[in-house]
Amino acid sequence: MSDKGYLLKESDLLPLSIGAALLGTGGGGNPYVGMLRARELIRKGASVRVLPLDALPDDAWVGEVGGIGAPVVGVEKIEEGGECFRAMRAVEDAAGVKMSALISAEIGGSNSLEPVIAAAYAGLPVIDGDGMGRAFPEVQMTTFFIYGAQAAPAAIADEKGNIVVFKEVFDMFWLETFARSVSINMGGGAGLAIAPMAMEFVRRTAVPGTVSQALSIGHTVLDARAKRQNVVERVCRDTGATVFFTGKITDVRREVSKGFAAGHAHLAGVGDWAGSEARIAIQNENLVLWVDGVPVIMVPDLIVNLELDTGEPITTEMLRYGQRVAVIGLPVHELLKTPRALEIVGPHAFGYPELTYVPLKSAV
Amino acid sequence: MSDKGYLLKESDLLPLSIGAALLGTGGGGNPYVGMLRARELIRKGASVRVLPLDALPDDAWVGEVGGIGAPVVGVEKIEEGGECFRAMRAVEDAAGVKMSALISAEIGGSNSLEPVIAAAYAGLPVIDGDGMGRAFPEVQMTTFFIYGAQAAPAAIADEKGNIVVFKEVFDMFWLETFARSVSINMGGGAGLAIAPMAMEFVRRTAVPGTVSQALSIGHTVLDARAKRQNVVERVCRDTGATVFFTGKITDVRREVSKGFAAGHAHLAGVGDWAGSEARIAIQNENLVLWVDGVPVIMVPDLIVNLELDTGEPITTEMLRYGQRVAVIGLPVHELLKTPRALEIVGPHAFGYPELTYVPLKSAV
Repeated sequence: MSDKGYLLKESDLLPLSIGAALLGTGGGGNPYVGMLRARELIRKGASVRVLPLDALPDDAWVGEVGGIGAPVVGVEKIEEGGECFRAMRAVEDAAGVKMSALISAEIGGSNSLEPVIAAAYAGLPVIDGDGMGRAFPEVQMTTFFIYGAQAAPAAIADEKGNIVVFKEVFDMFWLETFARSVSINMGGGAGLAIAPMAMEFVRRTAVPGTVSQALSIGHTVLDARAKRQNVVERVCRDTGATVFFTGKITDVRREVSKGFAAGHAHLAGVGDWAGSEARIAIQNENLVLWVDGVPVIMVPDLIVNLELDTGEPITTEMLRYGQRVAVIGLPVHELLKTPRALEIVGPHAFGYPELTYVPLKSAV
Repeated sequence: MSDKGYLLKESDLLPLSIGAALLGTGGGGNPYVGMLRARELIRKGASVRVLPLDALPDDAWVGEVGGIGAPVVGVEKIEEGGECFRAMRAVEDAAGVKMSALISAEIGGSNSLEPVIAAAYAGLPVIDGDGMGRAFPEVQMTTFFIYGAQAAPAAIADEKGNIVVFKEVFDMFWLETFARSVSINMGGGAGLAIAPMAMEFVRRTAVPGTVSQALSIGHTVLDARAKRQNVVERVCRDTGATVFFTGKITDVRREVSKGFAAGHAHLAGVGDWAGSEARIAIQNENLVLWVDGVPVIMVPDLIVNLELDTGEPITTEMLRYGQRVAVIGLPVHELLKTPRALEIVGPHAFGYPELTYVPLKSAV
């Protein structure tokens, strides 16, 4: 990688979306539609460069953008495409600055592509990094907010032309509250842009290199498929992931409540786990994996369901009875394991006071 | 009244709040706390002038402000006082204009005082008129919006310092939707300011003279009390109102749902109405009066419950079993009876497709 990063090619978009789906830990929305939109823009001549964290000067302004809503809604309510771009422009107006680059709120799922699409509209580069290193369900759950980003001005935009600006908000939790209910008013999905961040701050707080990481995972999956290798094994070998359960889904309970898709999936073990049972808690993303009643992976570490035969990541809204899955675990980035981060994205923050976070060990 | 209107005196605030409570038709929130706030500001030296609709030039900008929320919440969650002022300043910023005067969204209830309080903070006059000539529960139910006011930029502010700007909204119904849910997030009560309106537009569309009307009604009530007259009779004689029912409240069903106080009150007749029954539908305000199953007054005409003995207006959140009330009716202003207005504030708009609006005749 040169100092100036690399241009995203049309052929990068499929592996990027595959890697992002895996890092979405079941959530973040399916990146497929976003991939088609980004491809369309690149085919029409848009050019989006991926910049490493050290490419821009300290005082350059970086805009964080992402879709907000329940992923299960995104299946039927497809974004128009310009939502994040319009929200970003509204933030620029409100803050009186111009962005030099965009960065993803979350590399996991559809929000891997949202900054790429907004950057294509705006003629800006994207930064190789994000605020989660995975996907999380709420606005404040980014390294940016955890480490002190301003909550205002932020803005949300929909496909109808509505733009709401959060001009002054008490803190990031209030931003989440306001943005969530407006996103519900907007039909369950919208584009959110947060306050401009100085590059110096982004350099210290972003999870680094995650656009390249998603690309690399995607290439691994595609390569394993081309070579007819076992994709689950190959992904584990190349990424440091570990299989924690293999099983058949026996029950999925899921409802869209307060703008989130929340529920549980139950699995009966197969292969090495025959005779065991597992349960996965969901709030847009996979939150906790219990095997035979024992919690074995929990937020903020990554829990990913891969289709056992194809290695395809399965998003929570696509889980259904009878699917055979491998549940793999990946350690989250250190920036999300500090005491300060665990207050926002640890098991307690997700309503599991009985769980004490035990970091997942990498297999490699 | 001179061309330049009149200064609001401390002694005007009690009669203004009494008249506003009556014009609130049971809703609009109790103006008592607002009266205390306005009195405090005037005692500290603030000076608020009431200007007739012809006092300012056509191109002066007028700001419409008002509280938004369920009146029943306002009983426990008392406004900090600066909410509407901060919302108005955010609208000025977003629109890039300065207001020359403020006007009430609704003269009925606490929103009679909100522009006075905001005007005292801002050093501005208020216009003698409003957008309803009464109170209504939803943002779009003003003559301003009915006759084409812009829905954006508008802004909402709370007591914690949160300010949300509706920068672009598709129409006034979307503004109501967004503002309602943010007001619920803000605890069920907040200050709302809408887009600047040119004085020429306000002159054509405001319900004229309603600040003075509320003052006059309040003076009538106070004078009748001082002279130990029957207040209900005196109010009817001096204001053109008619008694449509007298009775005792036998049941009140009321719930706060989606940010509104909604329900029904049932009454058993007394006096001339002994043996009859009445029912009043409520959505923050009194919407329809049925006597023995026949609808006799309906929105947009004014339905007001006065305590039978004292003539005190009873707001819907204060209705309770055993109260003895006179239900009086007052014709609404002609601006709210046009076909265009009835689409927004007629019985169909409130979910009574079976009711055809029949204008109330004035008794005088």
